[in-house]
Amino acid sequence: MLELDRLILLLSKLPGLGPRSARRAALFLLKRRESLMEPLAAALAETAAKVQPCSLCGNLDTADPCAICRDPRRDQGMICIVEDMADLWAIERSASYNGLYHVLGGTLSALDGIGPEDLRIEALVARVEKTKAREAILAMNATVEGQTTAHYILDRLAETGVKVTRLAHGVPVGGELDYLDDGTLSAALAARKLLTPD
Amino acid sequence: MLELDRLILLLSKLPGLGPRSARRAALFLLKRRESLMEPLAAALAETAAKVQPCSLCGNLDTADPCAICRDPRRDQGMICIVEDMADLWAIERSASYNGLYHVLGGTLSALDGIGPEDLRIEALVARVEKTKAREAILAMNATVEGQTTAHYILDRLAETGVKVTRLAHGVPVGGELDYLDDGTLSAALAARKLLTPD
Repeated sequence: MLELDRLILLLSKLPGLGPRSARRAALFLLKRRESLMEPLAAALAETAAKVQPCSLCGNLDTADPCAICRDPRRDQGMICIVEDMADLWAIERSASYNGLYHVLGGTLSALDGIGPEDLRIEALVARVEKTKAREAILAMNATVEGQTTAHYILDRLAETGVKVTRLAHGVPVGGELDYLDDGTLSAALAARKLLTPD
Repeated sequence: MLELDRLILLLSKLPGLGPRSARRAALFLLKRRESLMEPLAAALAETAAKVQPCSLCGNLDTADPCAICRDPRRDQGMICIVEDMADLWAIERSASYNGLYHVLGGTLSALDGIGPEDLRIEALVARVEKTKAREAILAMNATVEGQTTAHYILDRLAETGVKVTRLAHGVPVGGELDYLDDGTLSAALAARKLLTPD
């Protein structure tokens, strides 16, 4: 049973799966060998071998430059700066942005010993200068680390003269005030919009 | 990005993972290509190719008969009948049983159209007759389906003359009465044990 034990051990290391759900997943897979288990093994091996970060923006893709960087229909003058791939995917799913990206690979964190040299910030400044980008959108998470990183990048981009913007903070669409945290409410109040003519 | 999308789609089919956690798992794996992703791909492929149900008891193993059936230190006269592999593993983890197993592969369920011929019941009766087993322990789940299946197997085993027992029902060790369901409490009361001499 060594093979099966090893599979369960590896599965249990995935985020969201513990030892119990890893056992369940292994049995689930063994009941679906041809429809799921073998395709999953192949997809893992193939993705591990082929998918690499884009040398321009850090997006994960089998091609370099990635599909987004190579797409001529995308606005080459806008760079949306995100912490990691999951954020890029979230913005792509919203289908409301048509520019390029820059994936930092994390946030500044004194606690975890992550400094500017560990993120793709130098590459970002060089890229903005070289491509003469029109606008850089700071799309970090609205967390302390995210906002610290955003401030640092804002400083670093000052020398390039690029226009820098950030995502709006406020009430989420569909959100109920009663369930919102105080920080969001005060941000939404401070950034309130005029509805009548000035 | 087709490879990555396909990997995420396959991961999202695992029990316990939805689309969101599948994306998270894929990124997690890509950050650990050599330590986790490639070993997982290999373990999946190897397990899919090698692990098969034991022809005697239905336990999953690379060898047939399985390691449990082949173990001469185990009591060959006892057969513990379980619904599926997860239950066998649970009993093995308890390290309180040293006989053989018989994995049914599910429970009788009129709703899902699962009849006796879909479970390994015929094989169980033949096995009990052939091996002249001393005792058959019904270790089905304490659910309606599990107990229906147990009743059916009890009937079927009558012809063999084997001694049939079932797991005790009662208060789980460490369980608090206040949090127990009524069914467990009444089972525990009905099966109460005499502590003073008769």
